[in-house]
Amino acid sequence: MKRSLAALVLALPLSLTAAPFSELTLSHADNLRQHAMQSDHAYRVVESLTTEIGPRLPGTHADQRAVDWAKARFEAMGFDSVRLEPVEVPHWERGFADARITLPFPQPLVITALGNSIATPDGGLEAAIIRFATLADLEAADPAAVKGKFVFIDHKMARFKDGRGYGPVVKARGRGAVAAAQKGAVGLLLRSVSTSGHRFAHTGVMRYVDGVTKIPAVALSGPDADQLTRMLALQSDIQVKLELDTLDHGVATSYNVIGEIHGSSKADEIVLIGAHLDSWDEGTGALDDGAGVGIVTAAAQHILALERRPQRTLRVVLYAAEEIGLIGAKAYRDRHKDTLDNHYIAAEADFGAGPIYRIDSRVNDSALSAFTLLTEQLAPLGVERGHNASWGGPDVSVLPVLGVPVAGLAMDGTDYFDYHHTPDDTLDKIKPEAIQQSAAVYTLFAWLMANAETELRPIPLPSQ
Amino acid sequence: MKRSLAALVLALPLSLTAAPFSELTLSHADNLRQHAMQSDHAYRVVESLTTEIGPRLPGTHADQRAVDWAKARFEAMGFDSVRLEPVEVPHWERGFADARITLPFPQPLVITALGNSIATPDGGLEAAIIRFATLADLEAADPAAVKGKFVFIDHKMARFKDGRGYGPVVKARGRGAVAAAQKGAVGLLLRSVSTSGHRFAHTGVMRYVDGVTKIPAVALSGPDADQLTRMLALQSDIQVKLELDTLDHGVATSYNVIGEIHGSSKADEIVLIGAHLDSWDEGTGALDDGAGVGIVTAAAQHILALERRPQRTLRVVLYAAEEIGLIGAKAYRDRHKDTLDNHYIAAEADFGAGPIYRIDSRVNDSALSAFTLLTEQLAPLGVERGHNASWGGPDVSVLPVLGVPVAGLAMDGTDYFDYHHTPDDTLDKIKPEAIQQSAAVYTLFAWLMANAETELRPIPLPSQ
Repeated sequence: MKRSLAALVLALPLSLTAAPFSELTLSHADNLRQHAMQSDHAYRVVESLTTEIGPRLPGTHADQRAVDWAKARFEAMGFDSVRLEPVEVPHWERGFADARITLPFPQPLVITALGNSIATPDGGLEAAIIRFATLADLEAADPAAVKGKFVFIDHKMARFKDGRGYGPVVKARGRGAVAAAQKGAVGLLLRSVSTSGHRFAHTGVMRYVDGVTKIPAVALSGPDADQLTRMLALQSDIQVKLELDTLDHGVATSYNVIGEIHGSSKADEIVLIGAHLDSWDEGTGALDDGAGVGIVTAAAQHILALERRPQRTLRVVLYAAEEIGLIGAKAYRDRHKDTLDNHYIAAEADFGAGPIYRIDSRVNDSALSAFTLLTEQLAPLGVERGHNASWGGPDVSVLPVLGVPVAGLAMDGTDYFDYHHTPDDTLDKIKPEAIQQSAAVYTLFAWLMANAETELRPIPLPSQ
Repeated sequence: MKRSLAALVLALPLSLTAAPFSELTLSHADNLRQHAMQSDHAYRVVESLTTEIGPRLPGTHADQRAVDWAKARFEAMGFDSVRLEPVEVPHWERGFADARITLPFPQPLVITALGNSIATPDGGLEAAIIRFATLADLEAADPAAVKGKFVFIDHKMARFKDGRGYGPVVKARGRGAVAAAQKGAVGLLLRSVSTSGHRFAHTGVMRYVDGVTKIPAVALSGPDADQLTRMLALQSDIQVKLELDTLDHGVATSYNVIGEIHGSSKADEIVLIGAHLDSWDEGTGALDDGAGVGIVTAAAQHILALERRPQRTLRVVLYAAEEIGLIGAKAYRDRHKDTLDNHYIAAEADFGAGPIYRIDSRVNDSALSAFTLLTEQLAPLGVERGHNASWGGPDVSVLPVLGVPVAGLAMDGTDYFDYHHTPDDTLDKIKPEAIQQSAAVYTLFAWLMANAETELRPIPLPSQ
């Protein structure tokens, strides 16, 4: 009885507003769902990108080749417009890296430089190590114990489907070198922010701040972090030698690559689906974020194949230089600041190949019922309704504070942190059936949002 | 009825010979089984070796440290004798290695030099590649198609519990460079002899022969081999640049490390259990063959803990330089040629950490019933009786042709070729319960063989 009453009350707002999706829109959605679930387009896009271009670190020649590849592909697909928007990006180069225990148990370590790290002085650095379980432990440490040593932060990431183990650990990647330098350390050895037990070091961006000495920073593979911990249990004085010859090439020009399907009746309103085109330099950027490129490209391809255009404009954005600090995302935000009010909704695929299991959002409360109906359309693909506190994915996360509604199409990331930012991020890690489903979900999301009769603004934001 | 009759006939020889194991021997076997299945000794040995020594390539300083480690450990255990037997070993060094596609899809490849490979000329080698599915296909090729190119052999290894996928594929590692050079190739790129989908290149020894030009030889990771195959499907002219600076340091001295528990009544008869102490240089040699070292060391430790000595002498041999061609094994064979007739039986643990699921042998037919009873003692540990055509493990495989009986304690190698000969061969890949069971099996095997009342010779050998 109570339940029926509640259902009635919940159903009430729907009856007072226009249906968010017309019969015709829903009929096309059925066609798109069927078509997308028989298409390998997304997989083929990733295959092409990772094979013909491979790794594409911002500012490199490979990055430029990736931009050319994306532009040519978009033009061949028949987008109504394709354009490049220049982005100034830092061009950092990994170079040679070597680390080894010198005493008392000499042996090599598997490491990789963190992105943005400076090089070691000529001849390398040799020092004892001091271990901390977490960044907070380092921050609480007596500087006298740290001075002149390598700081080793051994924070192990936990595995979750939604990747929530990442946030608490990745702080040490961003801020660890500064915290270590403030205590007088000579370098940072970070346990890879990763769920993998394999001997890959996971790179990722780190930051310096003005006024704090820059020290070199590297990631250790999980097995190497365990090895160091075992050594320290045997003997407190473990000496490490580190040689890095990273290079800072200054600033280069890259591009956000944009393809548009012009809307039939509300062309000035934008539904943005994005992914980032750049990748780290050691893998081929298949899961991160070739998969996202494949998913949003396939979604556009499927909609282009309809005889009917969406009412709103569908804009596919392949962002530049996500990995080194959302550079393309900020450039997009700044360049389009005068038209952000016209962005109906934005979403980014940047968490592997899927499958997508949940749709989160950040829209006005009055639009929640439309998301319930949207979820009904996604339910045959295995997608459930989630929360309304999404930030929409890394590159679009800069938009909600400017009022732009976002959706988060949550991908199963159980294995994502086994591979991301390593040499092992290669095409074979993508399950064709997973990326097919993800592309189908993005197709339906884009189509339904581009034709929805619902106001999504103003959006709720957390208080500062 | 038939079955009962057969059982009666099979039982007959037993009734005509002495029981192979006395009640006292079997009683101690019960104690040993219980003790061993509660001990983590084997795991702790591997932990110590892989942590304190790490990789130990023959001829290196680390190899010498491993010998010192083993000698000290054996002495501390209370063996009746511990000795080092010098072995002349080749000292090869990996050095720097880099390979990349230069055209038309420039990107780095994950490779590693095959053991024994020469370096490339200064400045490296750049050439097109030609792919062969197998060594046989290369051998059948027209030299005009191969001349001046890198040969890429893409033979994928199949996964089996007993590792039988290795033999058909590893031939190309040993002989591929010679076969390629005979057709005029400039170098060999071998798909790693591996079952792994991760981006590790698996090293392993290769050979040159007199009169054939030496060309550099490397292994590619599986994902890189797939990448090359995809590229070749897009475009036939794929250019690779290879730089290797391997070094041949000539000959160095290493040692077979031998510990003995002297037999109480048949001290001149030897039960040999072995493993190899050396490892490849990139991992820490945990599965290959730290695990074997742990298993045979723990077996001796458990038997030393008895108040009673075995009738025969138990000899534990930690062989030098197995990886680069059974060098320690051949030195042992030659040094002990006058006493090989006194070797009652030999077995080696060199296939990971287990568990052991089967016992094979190569003994006289009249001793098969004793192996049936031996298997009964191992059955509580999950071990079944296997065949009688064993070679006993790599280092003892040189002994049967000289008349020495051997046993093969077959380990579950389903995952072994995911890790072996890579940087990923580290302690965390060893399951404590698996190595515990393997050590218990070796303990019982050694104890029962050292006290058996059965003649194992002459052994059957395949005709030449």
